[in-house]
Amino acid sequence: MKRSDRLIGMTHYVLEHPLTLISLPFFAERYDAAKSSISEDLTIMDKMLREEGLGFLESVSGAAGGVKYIPTIDSKESEAFINTLSQRLEDPERILPGGYLFMSDVLGEPDTVRMIGRLFASQFYSLNVDAIVTVATKGIPIAYAVASFLNVPVVIVRRDPKITEGSTVSINYVSGSSRKIQTMVLTKRSLKQGSTVCIIDDFMKAGGTIDGMKSLLKEFDAHVAGIGVLAEAEDEEDERVVDDYTSLLKISNVDVKNERITIDKGNYFSN
Amino acid sequence: MKRSDRLIGMTHYVLEHPLTLISLPFFAERYDAAKSSISEDLTIMDKMLREEGLGFLESVSGAAGGVKYIPTIDSKESEAFINTLSQRLEDPERILPGGYLFMSDVLGEPDTVRMIGRLFASQFYSLNVDAIVTVATKGIPIAYAVASFLNVPVVIVRRDPKITEGSTVSINYVSGSSRKIQTMVLTKRSLKQGSTVCIIDDFMKAGGTIDGMKSLLKEFDAHVAGIGVLAEAEDEEDERVVDDYTSLLKISNVDVKNERITIDKGNYFSN
Repeated sequence: MKRSDRLIGMTHYVLEHPLTLISLPFFAERYDAAKSSISEDLTIMDKMLREEGLGFLESVSGAAGGVKYIPTIDSKESEAFINTLSQRLEDPERILPGGYLFMSDVLGEPDTVRMIGRLFASQFYSLNVDAIVTVATKGIPIAYAVASFLNVPVVIVRRDPKITEGSTVSINYVSGSSRKIQTMVLTKRSLKQGSTVCIIDDFMKAGGTIDGMKSLLKEFDAHVAGIGVLAEAEDEEDERVVDDYTSLLKISNVDVKNERITIDKGNYFSN
Repeated sequence: MKRSDRLIGMTHYVLEHPLTLISLPFFAERYDAAKSSISEDLTIMDKMLREEGLGFLESVSGAAGGVKYIPTIDSKESEAFINTLSQRLEDPERILPGGYLFMSDVLGEPDTVRMIGRLFASQFYSLNVDAIVTVATKGIPIAYAVASFLNVPVVIVRRDPKITEGSTVSINYVSGSSRKIQTMVLTKRSLKQGSTVCIIDDFMKAGGTIDGMKSLLKEFDAHVAGIGVLAEAEDEEDERVVDDYTSLLKISNVDVKNERITIDKGNYFSN
């Protein structure tokens, strides 16, 4: 097989297996090629991925060595993406009664969601998390997008227990903005005790929901290594109960009467 | 730029843009190459994608021509995947009270969900759908996986209206298996009138939920071109209210007392 053919197959394989150790012998056998040729292929691939701003191949040396694809995104492309997204979301027609923002259409686009996932993966890949935790419903697509780049499972916290889940652990928490008592449940067998996790959600006001998730995760002895939200409501900063998080967007000055809203880049871009 | 470098970048681009028309001049400009070279690259890529069972490049001729990546999967690989999945799900420990099956862990794995999406995309790509419709919560990850391969948005039907959604259309329907009256809502602005859609869900018993979605979609003048479910409960066949659907798995003989369950391949594999 020619190098050009092999590189197409190898590129597909590498992209579909991020953060997974792939050994040279694996590719050598798959494409009936010498290990030295595969090694050269991977050098070419690493260079090209870097040039295109798509991440890089990390070499792992030793007998059980190989390469790992680290999916990152360069800052130019991530800023361009978030600027376009901000502009789309600033449309006054998106403002709903109560000062909420209609984002379901944007969160329904698989390529937009995938890019959001890529941004968070770029930030969190070094944390070696065991799972991504989110809460039903809106955070789910983003959580899967992050998880697909970090090669870990998604664990979904629910507001209500379901019969198809088996035994659960539940907690009550106080919603930060509405001050209402709410319940959250997580199926016992969905998360191993002592896991390192990353919390992902679409939106954070005062942070009560995320704080509730943290409490629930304590019951599983989980270590929350990172928190990522697509958008934070800046006006709620004073009351915020969660402080160490990454946001891609900051929503402020929601003015329902005059149909105005301000959307800025989140703290992801200021680090 | 060398062909080998270019092919890595082009492979990434093509894989991330399934069912999207990509023109030769686009790649020629992006990689500063002659159109004839790009054309050769695409011929190599098409051959390799077919060899690896990953789909093919469809040529679109004419002035506005180019190629479209059609993501399919060969039957050998899809059968191997579904056999492994069946074996995992047949584990008696998955049987829950009421005859339900615990599948959340499997549906939490991004690569498993992506493969499920690939199988459905392989079946539905020629239907030219405008959107994938699913119902919260468990169908959501599968719907996004299908949508990412078909390059269309996901529209989520909810059981309860949410304030962050705006005005909605709702219907009442009778759940096929429990015979209870339930409600479903869809935000008005989430789906254009007259769309062609594909319904995706994780599980179908008698089909009441999917039948309810069909009624709700009628209010949007939508045409349901395809229905895909990961698993169907075969024991409910007599009472089934939906007949034209594609299933990947068939669950039968759920015996809670003796902790036994039978899982077979769905009708996807008999067509």
